[in-house]
Formats: sequence, structure tokens, C-alpha cells
Amino acid sequence: MQNFDYRTPTRLIFGRESIVKLPEVMRPLGKRVLLTYGGGSIKKAPVEREQSDACINSAERKEARPKVKLSLYGRVKELLKDFEITELPGIQPNPKYDPSVLDGVRLCKENNIDVILAVGGGSVLDCSKAIAAGACYDGEPWDLITYKVKAQKALPIVDIITLAATGSEFDPGGVISRTETNDKVGYVDPLLYPVCSILDPVYTFTVSKKQTAAGIADAMNHTIEQYFAEDTTLLNDGFCESMLRSLMVNGRKCLENPEDYTARAEMMLCCTYGCNRILSLGNSPSGWPCHGIEHALSAYYDITHGEGLAIITPRWMKHILSEKTIDRFVKYGINVFGIDSSLPKQEIAERSIDETYRFFESIGIPMHLREVGIDDSRLDEMARHIAENEGLEHAYAPLMEQNIKEILVASL
Amino acid sequence: MQNFDYRTPTRLIFGRESIVKLPEVMRPLGKRVLLTYGGGSIKKAPVEREQSDACINSAERKEARPKVKLSLYGRVKELLKDFEITELPGIQPNPKYDPSVLDGVRLCKENNIDVILAVGGGSVLDCSKAIAAGACYDGEPWDLITYKVKAQKALPIVDIITLAATGSEFDPGGVISRTETNDKVGYVDPLLYPVCSILDPVYTFTVSKKQTAAGIADAMNHTIEQYFAEDTTLLNDGFCESMLRSLMVNGRKCLENPEDYTARAEMMLCCTYGCNRILSLGNSPSGWPCHGIEHALSAYYDITHGEGLAIITPRWMKHILSEKTIDRFVKYGINVFGIDSSLPKQEIAERSIDETYRFFESIGIPMHLREVGIDDSRLDEMARHIAENEGLEHAYAPLMEQNIKEILVASL
Repeated sequence: MQNFDYRTPTRLIFGRESIVKLPEVMRPLGKRVLLTYGGGSIKKAPVEREQSDACINSAERKEARPKVKLSLYGRVKELLKDFEITELPGIQPNPKYDPSVLDGVRLCKENNIDVILAVGGGSVLDCSKAIAAGACYDGEPWDLITYKVKAQKALPIVDIITLAATGSEFDPGGVISRTETNDKVGYVDPLLYPVCSILDPVYTFTVSKKQTAAGIADAMNHTIEQYFAEDTTLLNDGFCESMLRSLMVNGRKCLENPEDYTARAEMMLCCTYGCNRILSLGNSPSGWPCHGIEHALSAYYDITHGEGLAIITPRWMKHILSEKTIDRFVKYGINVFGIDSSLPKQEIAERSIDETYRFFESIGIPMHLREVGIDDSRLDEMARHIAENEGLEHAYAPLMEQNIKEILVASL
Repeated sequence: MQNFDYRTPTRLIFGRESIVKLPEVMRPLGKRVLLTYGGGSIKKAPVEREQSDACINSAERKEARPKVKLSLYGRVKELLKDFEITELPGIQPNPKYDPSVLDGVRLCKENNIDVILAVGGGSVLDCSKAIAAGACYDGEPWDLITYKVKAQKALPIVDIITLAATGSEFDPGGVISRTETNDKVGYVDPLLYPVCSILDPVYTFTVSKKQTAAGIADAMNHTIEQYFAEDTTLLNDGFCESMLRSLMVNGRKCLENPEDYTARAEMMLCCTYGCNRILSLGNSPSGWPCHGIEHALSAYYDITHGEGLAIITPRWMKHILSEKTIDRFVKYGINVFGIDSSLPKQEIAERSIDETYRFFESIGIPMHLREVGIDDSRLDEMARHIAENEGLEHAYAPLMEQNIKEILVASL
């Protein structure tokens, strides 16, 4: 077991109508709020409230109170009517340094913002984290994102999650893309833990099948990236295996019935743990190889991150299966997919990879790069970019440029 | 799934020689330290350091440096030589309100203490939590412990753990005994999360077989208390099952070879999660019935908490096994003990209880109340005390006075 130093200060307020605590959470953080959001979920997420919050504890009158329908956007504005709100809308998936981060930093400085409220999925939150650090720095925010300069301070962040996937709500990192240089860079700093994440599974009822499936694949891959490592423990392996089983069972239920509260809730909690490290404290660093490869795919082609991960994962698995790694695959196959433990090791391992592939395929994910608009024209360039920037020669199973190229070719 | 509101601000510094970060952790908290400890572990725990910390990063010279042996007590004093230290030694297992809490509060007030450093197991830390709150309150500390008055403030706490068991290092609670009234009271307040817990598995090498076994039983019971609940999820069930399997496997290794670092480390991490709620976020409250019963046993007879729990647990299980609860036992039996899932449900459930009993017995725990000095003379009185004070009529399987009595009788 490796030494570790762990702390997650984020408060999780989870469940139906947890948004009612928003004003109480925001008040100590300041009055001037930057409200960040993306293209649609804040307007689409289903929100109902009872007619008067004032009598929320009055059980006798509760039954009689009619419900008022309004958008999540409307609900947030209503709850924060005493705050001064500046808005940054339109943050895109694979959030962009230019314009989103730069616009956000400018708005924070111009309006002397105290706190950022991010409403959306991981992209909105990741972008908000970069803004939070950039707003407290006089130079070019890219210096911070690339660690040329260490951030000394960041604005506090609160988030309301509308998409279960990235786990950004319970981790200190974000991923920012810079289109002109094909960079997609992970930026991690303990200053960036959200102060509070508000997680109401109801807000994910309107997430499309495509995005739900991508979220399942994203969280499954986060778990797999931690499971395939050295120095794992019985405890961590069990945590990861539980995550994977739960994501498959509940993910499928979410796709079959998008308004299954219990399934949406469990999927949401699983996703929250994905990047928090609680699944792998004491493991050796694995290098997160599928992320290293996928970041180039979305940087070059702007594809959906979870889909990219789902495509890469089984090809990466096939590539690294060897005498050295086979026992991990055997454990994975038996404990995650229930493969018969009396079969030969090689067969269990190969089946576990097939099962991984087939699960992603069964939830509707396009499983070939060509299906998401990527042909072979830039594979060499991407393989080189990945080999030069992602440090995968230090991964659990070391990957050199040639290995990366082979994985990309197998994924076509 | 139930709504929840969760936050654990505690920093965990885990692994060999993690104590070197102690001064850095303590410095921002203040100069005047109350050092609390118990009867022996601080003097017994094996500590070595290299001759000069100044050259700790100098790899060339590292090999040549001789080791210096000193006690954990000596090491702490050396690391904190620039601090003003007041000592509260002699805190007993099942820590006592009088004298330990009262003495600690007095010392804090007299010496204007800034921060408490607890070195020991759960008893030292639990006691230190009550002191931390009492030191910031003008009235009788018992008012806080019994929630007659809500604490407004508490001194910050740092701990160095020498016994893997209670999980107090990662939770906001403690248990305090008041001998004259046979009270053993749980005291929980978010103010009481330690700022930082330093966990070096080496310090547990000298823990006796008896205490190691009691620690295993304690952490297993913490997990069982959360597993047997309504509204559990695939995810939480899997987390709990992993904990139980890991505690059994690694606990046994610790008993066989007390200096097995890897086993001691994994057991230590398991114990840390025991009372943090991360194993059961979203579950319905279970009422922690075995704890409710055991608290009376240690309050009346001052027995070892983990042993009391081990004795009660299988008898409680047998008592609550019913048509309503059987599916939980079946899942527990299959996933924790690997019992053949094709057997009849009743048989799986009964075997799971036998396996629980036999595991505790196999690690050397006395499995009858008579063996730990408890006869039938006060069972009625204890059953009444528990029924009146522990709220077990609201537990997962509700327990009235008569039920509690039957469990105690079966445990004799």
C-alpha cells in the first residue's frame, strides 16, 4: 500500500428538493454571484415547487398546496433573489478556454464576483473551476491551467448538477480545451474543490439516452482507470467492483425508464465518487491511460468524452492483456461480470474484455471511431501528441507512441 | 434512496512516517497544545527516524544514515519542540467524563490551549473531542454531551492513531462514560471532525492480539450496523461487503504476523471508514442496535467495546432473522462468506449467522458475556436502561425491552 494524503472538503447535499438549501449555502460566500451554465439543461430540468416555501414545514397544509412548475433557471433566480447575479451562459461540452474561461474571468473581475454558481454537468463545472482560479490571478489564466504558475487563491464554487457523469462535483479538477492548439488539459488543484454540490436526481430525468449512456461509460471508465493499477487492496478492488456493477444495473434502468428516481439517484452517487480518489487510496498511480488517449480525440474532434472513453477502453484492455496483467482481468471478469471462475484464466480475461465491449454497445454507444466522425487521417499526429504530453510511459501498463497508435487503429 | 447532507473536512495523512508532516499540520492551529494520551501505546509504538531530518531529501546520503530508535512520545515531543505542550496522560478505555474530560477541559482553560493533539486509539480521541467542545463552553461539559446545550465552538483536534478500530479519526463523534450513572453516551457534532488524522500502520505493530481482534470486531460491527438497513443500494451493499471481507482477511493476517505492514495498513484504512457514513449514504437510519446494547454492557461492566460487540452481534442477528429481514441475511451470507447461493434461503441466512459467530471465535474473542465478567444479575436493569435510552424501537428491526433482554440472555 502506498502512502497518501487525502482531504475532500466538499459538502454534498443530495436528494429531492435539496436545492432549498441553496440560499443558506450561498449566503456566507458573498452577494455577487457568477451564474454559469451550458446550452439547455438549466432550462429543461424538471423542477416543481410548492406554492409557498414559507410553510414548507406545515404538514397539515402541505397536502393542499398546489405545485408550481418552473425551470431550474427560474427556481435558482427565485431562490437567489437577494443576490446580485451576473450570467455566463452557453458553456459547451469539452469547455473551451476561449471564449468560455476568458469570458468568465473577465466577468468576475468586472463585477467583483464573490462566488461562482455552476449549474449543469461536468463541462460547466470544469470551466467554472478554471474561471475561479483565473479570477484571482492577474496574468493569463492559461499559466495556471498548465501549472506554469501555481494558483494562490480561487473563488469559492457551488454547483447544481444536472448530468451524472464526470464526478467534478466531488473532485478538485477540471479539463479545459484549447482549440487552436488541439490541447485538452487536466487542471487539478485542491483550491478547486467545490464548497458544496447540490445533487437532485430529478434534474437528470430529462437527460437524453445518448448523454445518459455517455455518463455511465464515463463513470465506469473512471473506476476502471483506478482498478487497473499496482498495489490495489481487497478493499479498493471491492469498492471499484461495486461501482461497476451498480453503474451497469442502474444505468440500464435509467435508460429504460428515465424517471426511475432510485436508479437515477444511485447512478448519480456512483458518478460522484468517480474521480474523488476514495476508490483507490493507497493504490499506485495508474496513469489514467484511457483518459490520456481520449483527451486527444476530443481535442482534435470535439467528440463526447464518455463515448470516446467507451470506444478506447476495450481496445486498451485487449492491448495490455499480458502475463503480467492477466490476474487483474481475471478478478475483474469474475467479480464484475460474474464469469465462471473455473474457466482458464486466459478465457476469463478475454471474456471480461468482450463483456465490457458488449455492455457499452448494448447501451447504445457507437463503438467505432468512424461512427463519431474520426477517420485515420490524423491518427499518427494524435498518437505523437499523446505520447509527448500524457506521460503514459509511466502508466500501469506503459504505453509508447507505437502502442497508442495500435490502440487507435484498433478503435477505428 | 434517502436524502442526505454529507461533509467530512478531515485530512488523512496515511502511511509510513506520515508523522513528519505533524509540525506543518499543527503550526497554523496555534502554539499551545494539549497532548492527550492513554496508558501505553504512545510509549510502546515502534518509531524509528533517520539521524537528521534536515537531509531527508538527500538521496545520496540517505543510505548511510543510521536509524535512531525512540518512542512515539519522544518523536512527537521532538517534532513539536517549538510548541508549548501541556499533557493529559492516562485516558482509559471507555473514556470517563470524570476525571478525564473534566481534567482536560480544566487544563485547556488554565493554559489557554489552542489545539488538542490526541495520540492513541479511539478512547483517547473520543475523550479529546469532548474536551475540545467543553473547553469552549462556560458551563458543565455534560450539558454539551447530552445535547442540553448545542456547542457553538470547539478547539481544533489533530490525532495520531495507534490502534485500528473505532474510526473516530474520520468521524465527528465520540462516546463518553459516566460511571456513577452507568451512562455511556454517544456525542456527535460536526464541530468535532479532526482537522487531520495521521495514520502510520507501523504504530499498530505492537497492538496485542486481544486488542487487534477487538478492533477487527469493532470495525466489522460498524459495517454490519449500516448494512442491515432499509433503502440500501447495490453500491453501499458492495462497499460494506468489501469492508467485511477485507477486515476478515487482513485482520487474520495481522494476528498471524503483527508486523505485516500491508495487512496492518489495509485494516487501518478499513477501520477509518467505519463510522464516516461513506458506507451508507442514502440508506435509511438503522439505529445501530448492537451499539445501543453494547454501550450498556461497557457502562455497567467496563468491558472492551469490540468484544462486547462481537458477543452481541450474532445473537442480535439470530433474534431479528425473520421473513422481513431474511433477504438481507441471504445477501450477506453469499457476498461476505461465499455461501452457496443455491441453498434454501433459511439455510443461507442461518449459516451466515454461524459464520459470523465462528469468525469472531476464531480470532480469539471470548464469545460469552460470562467470559468477560458479566453474569445474569443485572440483565433486567440493563435491558430497561437500554430500552429507555437508546431508541431501539426505531431500529431496522425494532427492539423493545423484552427483545433486548432475550438478546442479553442468549449472549450469556
